[in-house]
Amino acid sequence: MDFVGRLHERIVAIDSRVCLGIDPRPALSPLTDPANLGDDAERVADAVEASFAAILRASADTIACCKLQAAFFEAMGVPGLRALSGLLGAARELGIPAILDGKRGDIGSTAEAYARAYLADGGFAADALTVNAYLGLDTLEPFLDAALTHGRGLFVVLKTSNPGSADLQDLTLADGRMLHQVLADRLADRARDLPRDANGYTALGVVVGATYPAALAALRKRVPAGVLLVPGYGAQGGTAEDVAAAFDADGLGAVVSASRSLTYLPATNVHDLAAAAAAAARDMRDAVNRALDARH
Amino acid sequence: MDFVGRLHERIVAIDSRVCLGIDPRPALSPLTDPANLGDDAERVADAVEASFAAILRASADTIACCKLQAAFFEAMGVPGLRALSGLLGAARELGIPAILDGKRGDIGSTAEAYARAYLADGGFAADALTVNAYLGLDTLEPFLDAALTHGRGLFVVLKTSNPGSADLQDLTLADGRMLHQVLADRLADRARDLPRDANGYTALGVVVGATYPAALAALRKRVPAGVLLVPGYGAQGGTAEDVAAAFDADGLGAVVSASRSLTYLPATNVHDLAAAAAAAARDMRDAVNRALDARH
Repeated sequence: MDFVGRLHERIVAIDSRVCLGIDPRPALSPLTDPANLGDDAERVADAVEASFAAILRASADTIACCKLQAAFFEAMGVPGLRALSGLLGAARELGIPAILDGKRGDIGSTAEAYARAYLADGGFAADALTVNAYLGLDTLEPFLDAALTHGRGLFVVLKTSNPGSADLQDLTLADGRMLHQVLADRLADRARDLPRDANGYTALGVVVGATYPAALAALRKRVPAGVLLVPGYGAQGGTAEDVAAAFDADGLGAVVSASRSLTYLPATNVHDLAAAAAAAARDMRDAVNRALDARH
Repeated sequence: MDFVGRLHERIVAIDSRVCLGIDPRPALSPLTDPANLGDDAERVADAVEASFAAILRASADTIACCKLQAAFFEAMGVPGLRALSGLLGAARELGIPAILDGKRGDIGSTAEAYARAYLADGGFAADALTVNAYLGLDTLEPFLDAALTHGRGLFVVLKTSNPGSADLQDLTLADGRMLHQVLADRLADRARDLPRDANGYTALGVVVGATYPAALAALRKRVPAGVLLVPGYGAQGGTAEDVAAAFDADGLGAVVSASRSLTYLPATNVHDLAAAAAAAARDMRDAVNRALDARH
């Protein structure tokens, strides 16, 4: 089954809309701190992989999906990319859909190469990829081709959670719409003839930050067939009440991601860390579900 | 010396404005074709690294800089990233400034991680990085901090060479400017208090495709202190006459990149390939220089 269909099946089966964010910052945990590991890049990357693999195992029944942030792996050099490949494999074995958060974007055959890297079979095969559409709608097609061919998904960055997201995304156009609204409308148009899952969603999702609840509610309507990937929960300030607007009336069509607040927790061994992460994921799952119930 | 100063010194010293594009497509050459190398990812990556290292050595006195396209390395998996690291090292040893074309962009601490990956010292240390500003001007600051701290450069994607580049980049805003012009103006503002090289340029450059000569001329004036990285020459249709407008009156402030037309040439061994690439780079250098002379 395709990414979106599998994601919705999991959301229903385990009643969780949590996306576990994997943003390795080795120095933040004594288990992976380079200062404790002889500043050896291979050992640090191995420890990062082991920590997050344990977190994934402990959280497998609690999280709808996971999201791996490419930047933090790339910052660890070649050993970091090996850890990324290992964690994508671990998620696959556990049946947890994995989103690679790379915000890739380029033209023509370069976009094809990115799609091959992340949306086909290979070392960095993910279930979905985040992409940036500034270069044009044509640059999404190679990603969409790969997603449809291989049963994967895409999330186009629409409205982000940072203070400066207004700089370009909220610019008002001559026709009165904001830039991110124009992009949303173009994506909704493009989705019209794409295949849909049992709940009416296509492989063409969008990223919308949790910190702008009004935009979240408006974009839920504006991109009706797109799953919303909602970062910015927790450490960045988004609350369960803020993100409730991302979901449709059935509580589907979105996942909410958190990273630091679920994975960098006090622990002196991997077992305790994994247990703490699973408990934090359960709390977040329940908080989001309560906020959804409160809508009615 | 900083990236921009070094780049300008090289442009003057060797009278070349050519940026050699390294876009590995292993199947396009018998020397790297997986079908000839037992479909062994390590052997393919090693052959790619050896081929492009030989091209760099043979072209060292002919090219102003080189640009490595991250997507093609990522599509080769972990061995591809090892080849990327190796080629960045080869360029460094040869004294050829290396631009990593990754079009990275993300918020806050994630942008910091990308900056650490590519603009600090480490496995993927490049002299400059291409970035995407859709997420907001604040998302450029971690990159700019790293560039200034470590003497590197940035190229913000402004106007690309693909047909769909108009979709977002050319949208007309309420104030009459096009989106890419607004971004250009914001970047020019930001550059005002940045340090400048002997020719008046800062670390904050821009990417402008060769296929829209009018935009190229307009953006040369609009971002007066930014070096223009101009892709789209050759295979994509940009000519030497088209790109002449990217340069200032002194023939500085821009580099023109070409990839396939300089590196995928008929050859049955690495030595012949490297010689053919160097000859192609000389021809391109001369064509661009003639077009610059013809402006006067």
